[in-house]
Amino acid sequence: MERAAPGSGLQALFSPRVIAVVGASRRPGSIGAALLANIRDGGYTGRLFAVHPDAAAMGGVPVYRSVAAVPARVDLALIVTPAAAVEATVRDCAGAGVRGVVVISAGFAEVSPEGAAAQARIRDLARAAGMRMVGPNCMGLVNTDPAVRLFATFAPVSARPGNVGVLSQSGALGAAVLDHAHALGLGISTFVSVGNKADVSGNDLLAWWKDDPRTEVIALYLESFGNPRRFARLAPEVARRKPIVAVKSGRSAAGTRAAASHSAALACVDVGVDALFEQAGVIRTDTLEDLFDVVALLSTQPAPHGRGVGIVTNAGGPGILLADACEAHGLTVPVLDASLSDELRRFLPEQAAVRNPVDMIVSATGADYARAIDAVGRDPSVDAVVAVYVPPLVTGAEEVAAGIAAGAAAVAAHKPVLTVFLSSRGTPAALAAGGRGRLPSFSFPENAARALAAAASYARWRDRPPGRAMALRPDALARVRGVIADALGGSDGKQWLSADAVETVLAAAGIRTAPSRVVPPETAPEAAAEMGFPVVVKGLAAGLVHRSDIGAVILGLSTTQEVVAAVSALRSRLAAAGMRLDEVLVQRQVEGGVEAMVGVVSDPDLGPLVVAGVGGREVELMRDVSFRLAPVTDLDAAEMIDRLRMRPLLEGYRSSPPADRAALVELVERVSALADAAPEIRELDLNPVKVLAAGEGVTVVDARILAATFATA
Amino acid sequence: MERAAPGSGLQALFSPRVIAVVGASRRPGSIGAALLANIRDGGYTGRLFAVHPDAAAMGGVPVYRSVAAVPARVDLALIVTPAAAVEATVRDCAGAGVRGVVVISAGFAEVSPEGAAAQARIRDLARAAGMRMVGPNCMGLVNTDPAVRLFATFAPVSARPGNVGVLSQSGALGAAVLDHAHALGLGISTFVSVGNKADVSGNDLLAWWKDDPRTEVIALYLESFGNPRRFARLAPEVARRKPIVAVKSGRSAAGTRAAASHSAALACVDVGVDALFEQAGVIRTDTLEDLFDVVALLSTQPAPHGRGVGIVTNAGGPGILLADACEAHGLTVPVLDASLSDELRRFLPEQAAVRNPVDMIVSATGADYARAIDAVGRDPSVDAVVAVYVPPLVTGAEEVAAGIAAGAAAVAAHKPVLTVFLSSRGTPAALAAGGRGRLPSFSFPENAARALAAAASYARWRDRPPGRAMALRPDALARVRGVIADALGGSDGKQWLSADAVETVLAAAGIRTAPSRVVPPETAPEAAAEMGFPVVVKGLAAGLVHRSDIGAVILGLSTTQEVVAAVSALRSRLAAAGMRLDEVLVQRQVEGGVEAMVGVVSDPDLGPLVVAGVGGREVELMRDVSFRLAPVTDLDAAEMIDRLRMRPLLEGYRSSPPADRAALVELVERVSALADAAPEIRELDLNPVKVLAAGEGVTVVDARILAATFATA
Repeated sequence: MERAAPGSGLQALFSPRVIAVVGASRRPGSIGAALLANIRDGGYTGRLFAVHPDAAAMGGVPVYRSVAAVPARVDLALIVTPAAAVEATVRDCAGAGVRGVVVISAGFAEVSPEGAAAQARIRDLARAAGMRMVGPNCMGLVNTDPAVRLFATFAPVSARPGNVGVLSQSGALGAAVLDHAHALGLGISTFVSVGNKADVSGNDLLAWWKDDPRTEVIALYLESFGNPRRFARLAPEVARRKPIVAVKSGRSAAGTRAAASHSAALACVDVGVDALFEQAGVIRTDTLEDLFDVVALLSTQPAPHGRGVGIVTNAGGPGILLADACEAHGLTVPVLDASLSDELRRFLPEQAAVRNPVDMIVSATGADYARAIDAVGRDPSVDAVVAVYVPPLVTGAEEVAAGIAAGAAAVAAHKPVLTVFLSSRGTPAALAAGGRGRLPSFSFPENAARALAAAASYARWRDRPPGRAMALRPDALARVRGVIADALGGSDGKQWLSADAVETVLAAAGIRTAPSRVVPPETAPEAAAEMGFPVVVKGLAAGLVHRSDIGAVILGLSTTQEVVAAVSALRSRLAAAGMRLDEVLVQRQVEGGVEAMVGVVSDPDLGPLVVAGVGGREVELMRDVSFRLAPVTDLDAAEMIDRLRMRPLLEGYRSSPPADRAALVELVERVSALADAAPEIRELDLNPVKVLAAGEGVTVVDARILAATFATA
Repeated sequence: MERAAPGSGLQALFSPRVIAVVGASRRPGSIGAALLANIRDGGYTGRLFAVHPDAAAMGGVPVYRSVAAVPARVDLALIVTPAAAVEATVRDCAGAGVRGVVVISAGFAEVSPEGAAAQARIRDLARAAGMRMVGPNCMGLVNTDPAVRLFATFAPVSARPGNVGVLSQSGALGAAVLDHAHALGLGISTFVSVGNKADVSGNDLLAWWKDDPRTEVIALYLESFGNPRRFARLAPEVARRKPIVAVKSGRSAAGTRAAASHSAALACVDVGVDALFEQAGVIRTDTLEDLFDVVALLSTQPAPHGRGVGIVTNAGGPGILLADACEAHGLTVPVLDASLSDELRRFLPEQAAVRNPVDMIVSATGADYARAIDAVGRDPSVDAVVAVYVPPLVTGAEEVAAGIAAGAAAVAAHKPVLTVFLSSRGTPAALAAGGRGRLPSFSFPENAARALAAAASYARWRDRPPGRAMALRPDALARVRGVIADALGGSDGKQWLSADAVETVLAAAGIRTAPSRVVPPETAPEAAAEMGFPVVVKGLAAGLVHRSDIGAVILGLSTTQEVVAAVSALRSRLAAAGMRLDEVLVQRQVEGGVEAMVGVVSDPDLGPLVVAGVGGREVELMRDVSFRLAPVTDLDAAEMIDRLRMRPLLEGYRSSPPADRAALVELVERVSALADAAPEIRELDLNPVKVLAAGEGVTVVDARILAATFATA
């Protein structure tokens, strides 16, 4: 079955003129009854029908015995029948020319292989009829558009109209999200509980929201990706226009176990998911609360164009906590320009602090807030302003809120203004009354800092050019595939490539390895002499991968005699490990340089994941690595290296000369190009890589590649 | 002036029978008027008077012209006069036999040196009269004891009686904390806004709360320590009985700047504060919200005795988020015992997950919760149970809460039970109605996980024996001090000790360094030959500290000729750096071993901070270090090493043999003993330290010590 173009056909789901609820029920507390009541009571503007064998009106809604019997062309059918009846119902819908279905009924892929087969059948039925389908195993959908007002969920959700599109892969959590958003005053454009995603996927919804004029921020709760590679292409296009904020669960072993039993989710390696989101410009939050905080910020304010935060407060303590949290999350709290401090000093009391945080002390009035916010907002090093208020006496909150709103209106439109009201009485209405509209209000200073930091990272991504990824030339690619095909010998298995094959593959990708030769053990001394000392010798044997673990790498050999002794040592060390020394790799020893590593791990779902980090044996302990999904652009590769703690080593640490950072970045690009072009490469490990002095490039000292037959999906 | 014993005399502050408000005012909105009204309206059970020059009743409270004129012995005077009048008022109080004063008035040490002098005078007046004093520059105090009911703050705080003692160094933040605690349903025993802490300090309050039967949990908001060393001794004594939860602000540069201008706070290095809290068993939270979450947990539940969490939920999504958050914070979500899974299977529907998280799906009733919580709580690998509830339909929350309460009552008393109610409708009252009393309820799954992880770490600290710290023998100490005194030559300055002096100091502490001799450059080859090859030579020159940065360390010399060449190289490298080669240190080269470092930095307020980590030149980049304040016990030293990412290197990483971890731990203890006994040591740096194979000990390869005259405080 062909898939529809992303996002097409969703109009019938979101804005139907005629709805039929199939499997509606009069039984109070039943899902069918709740669904029907919610649609009716939500003020749906179209025509609503129920379908039930026992045709009699239900709560004022006309009932018919079948979808075909409904005396109007049904745009959307909401199905809440038992699982066993769903297939027949979908067939009826197809026959009646229905344009979209939402299958709320559970009992499909989430319970058994038989359920999965039934799910595939109803999906195929729907697609063959040109119907889009949400679910099965979902909670429904919501569209707050006043022209539609569709509350098609069985949970009693409240949602006010607004600019946030919400997707939830967990129905119950989705209901809780809408409930909390409502309590926070966040408005929703559309909400979809996607359930098992048999047809309508997260990608479809992203594509829809991209062009939906009512949606300005997208919030996702995900447990799995259906098609992460499509997500990787689509999400950045959307994120350049509208921020996407996501919680992806199933990070931990226990969480993955739970997610697997919950929704048969794919277990993408979490570091790959992080890379996916980061490259796509998706704001991933650690917690559900952070999701709300970031959405609250970005649904009313622009993302800040830099990391400088101006703080205006009437109490020292929360100002300090906010400053701490800002710096902990990579924001800065710059000292204000002296002229602005002077300006503040002129109207604030002597005990006030006027450098930033601006602590106006307990006596601050609304007018003080207005003037201080205006002044702080004018500082060129301030990219965002946060106003903090602690009620010192019972009066004043409304007046202060009005002052904050007035001050915010004076701040340049591209700088966000946030508030922290440390009060259980909540946020005064006056906060929304200024020329800037609703200002986001956070319960704790740290929440404002976290949200702002996430928004600043997003803005930096959005404002950055996309960069260019390197590609392998066709002839080089042909050479790589040829070598791998030879190594696999037509088998279906996995295979570590031989030292020669590795060398050929790397050379095809323009990656330089230390000069070396593979020779029979007895000719190693002679080969070393020809190559020039000092040399390294490595023992080669079938099945030997981690050579250094058994002492099969011997460095620093300066004479023929030393090589003879080393080969003898290799022979006995391999014998001790139960292996036979087949051949010896003699390699010119690379002197100096900073040790790095570059590698690839191919995730079955996400594709090749490129890693770069410090090299040597301790790489796994130090965890000083960055990950990106291939293809890695030049800018991404540079960022990978810039983020390493080891970065100063490359820049000339203490007395060392600067190393060839640019060559290491280029190596990452070449590895990415190789992995992207040759999906047969399941693992690639260049470790160590010697990063030589600036201008002298990098040399790969040891390399291994695991290849496997690539089955085109 | 002598200080009172910790915590003594606070009875008059918390439980006065007669109060006078000095500087009370009729002006609405004034601090004096608000204070008087709050005490009166809070239902204070004692006798309340006001003192004002214009003696007439204020709002039903009798007014007198002076404290002396009040017709009863005043236990507590609350002073809200202008700063200039405070000194005279305190003198009047002393004359009238008042037992405690709370100086709310601001304008003292926080504004100017003159203010600091005035503050010192009123403190001395109070101490001379045997009065305890809170403030100045504070918001007052609260005692919810029904026998007292004292709401002596000018902010309109609400607080219900409970078991949490609260200290805030920021008055406004303190009011916000009480407000939020009230909204969360948390009960307070006593609250103190400590202001400038001229007399009554955080340490005094800890000592008081330690023995206060109404207080079971202590919550602190701190911006500075008055006497961190006293805190370090006192806090663990308190924490063994009652959990202490603290937010300490001023972590960042901007935060410290703000704190300094706010309360003239000391800028302790934050890593030292972390060490202080950790060693003292104080639970430091990152955010204000976490403080509430931990207090909410520990004010009703025991701290868990292990890290295993059992999760019972009616929705998959939040269960997965909770499992993820548990593992992210070092907790585990163990698979349940098969017999318990079977038991769950017998009453839960087929689609339920029964391994942990236990997902009972949307149909779960209160009875299901009760049975599942009981079963999960019986698993020996479960140390805490979290019940998660998402309202699937409008009905049921009360019934589910009752079920949870019933299930919780069946769980062993030493295992905490928490709840997460993902609902803006808040927590049903039935949650408090079970045999276990009030169960804490969190808004988001991640908050429950963070609080539980903090409580588990606290329990591990509390259940651990305190350990023993090593001490220097008196003769060794005398030798150390003698060497340092000689080096300083009676001067007041700081001085890097000579190589010989360093060696003597380390030897006195039982620390072994690599065999070495300091010789004139020309005799270095001869010294090397006597010592035995291979050797290292190091150039010594006045003012040279970071030797390796200028190439003044040359390793791996195997012959006399190589030493001659090396000395010549040292001479020219030092010359290039503008120094003269005075002497050469010839050292036997230590082969093999894992590189580590151990050091000391002396904080002027916290005392010596001991650090251990990976060694070598990259130590600053890798940031793989642990800190503890001296004295470091044997258990603390072992923990320092266990926490390093490098730890597997010591245990035999890949093909390496295990290293002498025990000897490294002992080295940390010896360094701590040295630093603790000789406060003249301002910095000490053993880097690298070679940790040899198990049983062969550690050898210090390079060492430097900065000493300075120690002025007894």
